[in-house]
Amino acid sequence: MAYSAKIGPSILSSDLSCLGSECVRMMECGADYLHLDVMDGHFVPNLTFGHPMVECLRKSVGQDPFFDMHMMVSRPEQWVKPMAAAGANQYTFHLEATTNPGNLIKEIKESGMKVGLAIKPGTTVEELAPWANHIDMALVMTVEPGFGGQKFMEDMMPKNHRAEKCLSKSSDFTDQPVTSSDTCPFPQRVSFLPSATAFLRQLNQCIC
Amino acid sequence: MAYSAKIGPSILSSDLSCLGSECVRMMECGADYLHLDVMDGHFVPNLTFGHPMVECLRKSVGQDPFFDMHMMVSRPEQWVKPMAAAGANQYTFHLEATTNPGNLIKEIKESGMKVGLAIKPGTTVEELAPWANHIDMALVMTVEPGFGGQKFMEDMMPKNHRAEKCLSKSSDFTDQPVTSSDTCPFPQRVSFLPSATAFLRQLNQCIC
Repeated sequence: MAYSAKIGPSILSSDLSCLGSECVRMMECGADYLHLDVMDGHFVPNLTFGHPMVECLRKSVGQDPFFDMHMMVSRPEQWVKPMAAAGANQYTFHLEATTNPGNLIKEIKESGMKVGLAIKPGTTVEELAPWANHIDMALVMTVEPGFGGQKFMEDMMPKNHRAEKCLSKSSDFTDQPVTSSDTCPFPQRVSFLPSATAFLRQLNQCIC
Repeated sequence: MAYSAKIGPSILSSDLSCLGSECVRMMECGADYLHLDVMDGHFVPNLTFGHPMVECLRKSVGQDPFFDMHMMVSRPEQWVKPMAAAGANQYTFHLEATTNPGNLIKEIKESGMKVGLAIKPGTTVEELAPWANHIDMALVMTVEPGFGGQKFMEDMMPKNHRAEKCLSKSSDFTDQPVTSSDTCPFPQRVSFLPSATAFLRQLNQCIC
């Protein structure tokens, strides 16, 4: 299977004191989208920023850049509407952080955002699989979420392969029309080494 | 009693996409220090930023500006060392957020920061009073913490007067040497209308 590459840099190591210009710089350097790391100090032991920052970033960088929000927060339901109002495009929540993924997926879609579903290294692909038909992106973490600069967990590779097989077999995934190219593979895989591998539903919109 | 005025603007309504330049602008406009609002989405229903931002701000604006961290977080013990390492000067935690204020005050001092103690509108001055001898600033909120743009709670004025009397009677407060001026009142009061009133121990250091 061949892969095309999309680049969605995390802003976690940026200069947060001028994040707007950092985002512009990343887009000018060829980023296809921006991966924005939201941490609340409860789901992970780090505290980055929330929707007030996203609102300011959207005003600063304009409507074009696609914002994928990686919600490393313990109550992801809390921020769906604020993030949509702030200008987020995709809401990627952690399966471990909610007791009702189905309802959360519904709320995210109703808010007009795409849906991403992330799992930590200790969560199995089989736990994610039931939701594959309902999401736009699956994010399989290959480090523990919370900090940049970690070493890639090589032992996650078999899990990635299982994820690929599992998601490829998902009926909705394989039945999705691919409008941008009839030769592109499905699903799309994007490696965020060392932190994660994302499996994407489609190629014809921003990152998927 | 006469008061001198100190200006410590909150950055909550700034353009967070370029907070470094916003802070510089505020200092150039005459701010005496910066009041940085940290919210974790748990103690208050808003999520602003944490120590990674403070670290970037410190690098951006240099060593001079005094950073008072208003820690609207549910586990204030968690961020003492990270905030000190990031370049914070004063750590103002909420009395409602901890079960052991004494130990937290000790940890903050050991980390090299000044100590601020904040109370929400529903918390009495009498609950704060036992800690008055051990802190550098008392912050009496006159809106519910979490958001900007709120209306001043006028019914907090009697509480402010009680706080002033209570803190003035504090033995350590009144016994503190005042090195910058032998005429300055003690304690100093700073009104952050509409959000809070701060009572300060000394005049001879940055904000107090």
